[in-house]
Amino acid sequence: MARTNTAPRGPGRPRASVDAAVFASTLRTVDELGYAGATMDRIAAAAGVAKTTIYRRWPSKGALIVDCLLDAFGPVPLSGASREAVLETAVRWTAAKIGEPGVGAAFAGVFTDAVSDPALRRLLATRFQAPYLEALEKRLGEPEQRMLFVIDVVVGTLLHRMGMTGEPMGEEDVDALVAMVVRELL
Amino acid sequence: MARTNTAPRGPGRPRASVDAAVFASTLRTVDELGYAGATMDRIAAAAGVAKTTIYRRWPSKGALIVDCLLDAFGPVPLSGASREAVLETAVRWTAAKIGEPGVGAAFAGVFTDAVSDPALRRLLATRFQAPYLEALEKRLGEPEQRMLFVIDVVVGTLLHRMGMTGEPMGEEDVDALVAMVVRELL
Repeated sequence: MARTNTAPRGPGRPRASVDAAVFASTLRTVDELGYAGATMDRIAAAAGVAKTTIYRRWPSKGALIVDCLLDAFGPVPLSGASREAVLETAVRWTAAKIGEPGVGAAFAGVFTDAVSDPALRRLLATRFQAPYLEALEKRLGEPEQRMLFVIDVVVGTLLHRMGMTGEPMGEEDVDALVAMVVRELL
Repeated sequence: MARTNTAPRGPGRPRASVDAAVFASTLRTVDELGYAGATMDRIAAAAGVAKTTIYRRWPSKGALIVDCLLDAFGPVPLSGASREAVLETAVRWTAAKIGEPGVGAAFAGVFTDAVSDPALRRLLATRFQAPYLEALEKRLGEPEQRMLFVIDVVVGTLLHRMGMTGEPMGEEDVDALVAMVVRELL
């Protein structure tokens, strides 16, 4: 792929700008070619950076995807007047994020790789899941095991729907998911 | 890998015996090397059959995995004196199957590929999911949309746990999952 990016590259280019270009092309490439087809080579070409630039920052595709997802999700919104409202906000936010182009496929792919990759599982658990888990536990006053269960339910359900239909979950079923986890935790 | 299988091969070998050998080596290879690492080449070598033999039966890895999962799962048990008991049996059976070596990883992998592969999604929906969906709808008297939602919840939750921990869900959380979907449907 031609390097059409006109920003200056090399040692002078700020890290944040390289990261943003790589994250955007990661999601675009996953969306177009699927998780398996989105190789580090193709992501580098789409971002207009050298493959070595990517490997200097992320030693593996798994590590890149984890940081890309962290960037795509950002912090979980925890606003709401009641625990019920907070939980509803968090579930709807998760559903919307997983529905963004490339995000659901990248998420499902990294979990699949993690089943047989202990190092990637550690990275997912500590770098990706831990901040969300901690924020939700604290805000909702739930013990860790219950919170982990609810995260499995919400994220797993949304990703399974994405895999079976290729599309994000519709509004009616997201409503059912919200109602189910509210009943579960309250 | 050496061909250590001593059963007769070639045109004379019965199809069921070849299928069984290929399914067993598919799950073993996925368990050992992960979904991405379990290539058609490696599966053929592990089964002691020619790659052409596999491609004659299954045109793609996705098609092979779907049939392998159908074989591993078999029909869903629908026994129970009440709808609640039937649902509980089905959820515990799903959890146990997903915990078998290679099954969880194969399942998660095929869903991930399906996110960006419409033909594979159709195969998963019609060949794999449809018989279970139909049997459960009929036995539980639930409309299709509700049954699909519960399948997403049960399978998605179990696969997400597998991806995050590399291990099947523990008994206490399977109990919570049973209780949650029973409340949801009854």
